[in-house]
Amino acid sequence: MNVTIDTNRLQAELGQLAAFSSSQGPGVTRVLWSEADQQARAFMRRLCDQAGLRVREDALGNLFARWVGSAPDLPAVASGSHIDAIPDSGRYDGTVGVLGALEAIRALQQAGFQPQRSLELILFTAEEPTRFGIGCLGSRVLAGTLDPAALRQLRDRAGATLDELRAAAGFVGDLGQVALAPGCYSAFLELHIEQGPLLEQAGLPIGIVRAIAAPASLRIALHGQGGHAGAVLMPARHDALLAAAEIALAVEAAALATGSPDTVATTGVLRIEPGAINSIPARALLEIDVRDIASAPRDQALAAIERAADEICARRGIHAERTLLNADPPAMGDPALIELVAQACQEHGIGHQVMVSRAYHDSLFMARVCPTSMIFIPCRGGVSHRPDEYAAPEAIARGVEVLARSLAAASVMP
Amino acid sequence: MNVTIDTNRLQAELGQLAAFSSSQGPGVTRVLWSEADQQARAFMRRLCDQAGLRVREDALGNLFARWVGSAPDLPAVASGSHIDAIPDSGRYDGTVGVLGALEAIRALQQAGFQPQRSLELILFTAEEPTRFGIGCLGSRVLAGTLDPAALRQLRDRAGATLDELRAAAGFVGDLGQVALAPGCYSAFLELHIEQGPLLEQAGLPIGIVRAIAAPASLRIALHGQGGHAGAVLMPARHDALLAAAEIALAVEAAALATGSPDTVATTGVLRIEPGAINSIPARALLEIDVRDIASAPRDQALAAIERAADEICARRGIHAERTLLNADPPAMGDPALIELVAQACQEHGIGHQVMVSRAYHDSLFMARVCPTSMIFIPCRGGVSHRPDEYAAPEAIARGVEVLARSLAAASVMP
Repeated sequence: MNVTIDTNRLQAELGQLAAFSSSQGPGVTRVLWSEADQQARAFMRRLCDQAGLRVREDALGNLFARWVGSAPDLPAVASGSHIDAIPDSGRYDGTVGVLGALEAIRALQQAGFQPQRSLELILFTAEEPTRFGIGCLGSRVLAGTLDPAALRQLRDRAGATLDELRAAAGFVGDLGQVALAPGCYSAFLELHIEQGPLLEQAGLPIGIVRAIAAPASLRIALHGQGGHAGAVLMPARHDALLAAAEIALAVEAAALATGSPDTVATTGVLRIEPGAINSIPARALLEIDVRDIASAPRDQALAAIERAADEICARRGIHAERTLLNADPPAMGDPALIELVAQACQEHGIGHQVMVSRAYHDSLFMARVCPTSMIFIPCRGGVSHRPDEYAAPEAIARGVEVLARSLAAASVMP
Repeated sequence: MNVTIDTNRLQAELGQLAAFSSSQGPGVTRVLWSEADQQARAFMRRLCDQAGLRVREDALGNLFARWVGSAPDLPAVASGSHIDAIPDSGRYDGTVGVLGALEAIRALQQAGFQPQRSLELILFTAEEPTRFGIGCLGSRVLAGTLDPAALRQLRDRAGATLDELRAAAGFVGDLGQVALAPGCYSAFLELHIEQGPLLEQAGLPIGIVRAIAAPASLRIALHGQGGHAGAVLMPARHDALLAAAEIALAVEAAALATGSPDTVATTGVLRIEPGAINSIPARALLEIDVRDIASAPRDQALAAIERAADEICARRGIHAERTLLNADPPAMGDPALIELVAQACQEHGIGHQVMVSRAYHDSLFMARVCPTSMIFIPCRGGVSHRPDEYAAPEAIARGVEVLARSLAAASVMP
């Protein structure tokens, strides 16, 4: 089968998608259900319509676009990713997996391929935790890991509930119906930039993911005592920022102390109030992300951070509220699916390696629904979540080709 | 002379002023030239008009309201403070000195007093550094310590220049004409809540200020390297927040290390970007306030902070830009004026002590223009810059009475 990827079209569409942004370029900001996100979703719906796909959206805004196969009652083969983007980030994270899956379907259509199992593009709602502080919101709910009661508790920073925000974005209906039925898919494959430097360093165009690092997210709200920066002498202070600073350094120390080189821990959010130069910080909010490809060192670091926070706050007379936002187990790739992708590479002489994903993805949760793996392509310097994130057009096209061939093979698997 | 303070009227006016706020009560937020600040200024102009005072405003928005004396060509006696308020702060800081000076003038009018030197209320523009990162903007310029070229460099967080913002607020004209002429005032007296606990602890209604602590303000902008929180391993990181956290702790350590119990150092501002839980902080901004009633320990702490910041940033591979926003010398109260206030207390059996001010005030700069002192009144728990800042009505009235008697005495001094 002659699979031809239309690189010009795909690059143009990546550029169009990047233009839907709440911030000035080159960085992209596309927070869930912002105007930019809503415009980008409408753009994706138009492209799916133009490709003749059957589009549906669920009550959470997850979008499904299906190329119905000749055996429409068999479990389908799915591929997809997300289009939301954290503030001032890049244009490839997620989007390559969404537009790439669409291009893979179009290339198979162009090649005259007839799928047996249906092929379905999935655009997941809010892989990024920016709005609600929890990552992979859409795929979590699809995998049935968050029940409607927990979902109704979610609020964004401005205090708006998930229900209010999804209704305003045009998504209504019962959240209890979002979870996927068992057996609905035979396979899920996500194309994604590596967000790490290994493929680039190895000079390999394709990585096939055998495990995804397990993230844990911790929020700590600190309540100290404010006051005038000139008038309160040092021994009388209960400065929330100083406790937060010690905790941020303890987060780093905890990651370094596990003995696993794969443990990473990051304080990505630190906000203080009132936040004026002549005022002692009364309150601080930290959001902390801890990961490893194994659960044990990850949980060890998490426990060390919690112990350190308790000690620091007790010593400084700060009241702390700790909330474990999530602590998901790692996901393993499906061996048969990994082998299928590897064969698609081998048959066409495309270099590849089996590897782990240090970033987490919607695949972490899709792995609970059906056999899952990911196809990684190199990105420059391993850089991601930054305006200078970059994947070469030919690298993307190679990834889309491997995805197309893999989807085709999976669609005719018995 | 029978001086009667109208406590009900003064309390009502304090309440009305507190209602001009950008935030929900009980806290008050009134940032320079915000809608709330503009409404509060209009309110003050109306009250001054009603009291028959001659009102003028300079090109920076400083407001002067004069009760013309019988010797209008003699240097006048001035009193006043500020009405701007940092985010979510209290209703007494500054406002007691503005409404209190007005009430003192009205009480003297009511008593049939005829001033010889004119009595002038001054409302200073932006004592708080919230908007431009520099405290006492109005009084600094009145004292001639900031030239128009330096003023033109000032920008707020949104990038707007002082010239743009003052024009939008209705203040135009040459900033070079704002500085006060030598000899324009014979005395300046500022009524203020103590913002510390000493008067309350001593059970004394009045403090007379003999020295004002000298503030230094330092801004440090940190440029590290962002990236995905999952993908960049710990040894490869240049996390701007971790450098900022170490610097904030070094600020605390530097204050404790001077050997002077009066040294205080505060990191009141810490902002990071991009500020997402799964993103390594690429940039951080710190604003640091260092004070002592003596210059030497204050400058020792400042130097220690700068050395620590340099070492931390070099070790972590972070680029830092340090800006010393200001480092003013301390101010001394005028002995004759202190004696005049003390006599006003003694003659009417009002307990008082001579003390230092740990917070700084417009008086710090007015002390460069003319003989200056301050009248402190107790505030509950020494709390300030917080929503629960509180001074009792009778404590305020006592302060206004002492201010009125002192202004009267000063206005007839040869």
